[in-house]
Amino acid sequence: MVELLSTEARKAALWELAGWAEMPGREAITKTFVFKDFNEAFGFMARVALVAEKNDHHPEWKNVYKTVEVVLATHEVGGVTKRDIDLAKAMNAMARQLGVS
Amino acid sequence: MVELLSTEARKAALWELAGWAEMPGREAITKTFVFKDFNEAFGFMARVALVAEKNDHHPEWKNVYKTVEVVLATHEVGGVTKRDIDLAKAMNAMARQLGVS
Repeated sequence: MVELLSTEARKAALWELAGWAEMPGREAITKTFVFKDFNEAFGFMARVALVAEKNDHHPEWKNVYKTVEVVLATHEVGGVTKRDIDLAKAMNAMARQLGVS
Repeated sequence: MVELLSTEARKAALWELAGWAEMPGREAITKTFVFKDFNEAFGFMARVALVAEKNDHHPEWKNVYKTVEVVLATHEVGGVTKRDIDLAKAMNAMARQLGVS
């Protein structure tokens, strides 16, 4: 079973995760990615989907044309764990390849 | 320029669109699809994305694991048009192939 991060560990992890922030009113982290167009936004989602499925850890996300709003939390433990931080890092790396930070 | 549907035409179209409804408080139509798992939900989204891109008419959608919540509207005219009805029909057809109605 994956463990909840302490407040301190979560803050330290977020400090190194460009664009991610605590989600107000919920034990989760969130980021909105803005791409050039739908092609890039959905291309990003497709790459993330493969990683998510492989690791059996999935984002909550909303896509409107070129924006992708993501919320990450680990439902089994009701909060943020290393699995969320790892997925957030992977998402940042994939977005960076599309020129988005 | 695509035209807004009249209230009557919109109601008639929705009548034939299983699971779709007017969105409260907004000039749009909405449906939540529930699949077996993430694989099917994202597979559905990938197929819809290709259709959306081809027709240059994109959904707003939120995916949480096996659910896909969709909102359709035509932003240029601020409401529901034939383009939304066509995309909704295509989505229903693709969901049906995955055994979801």
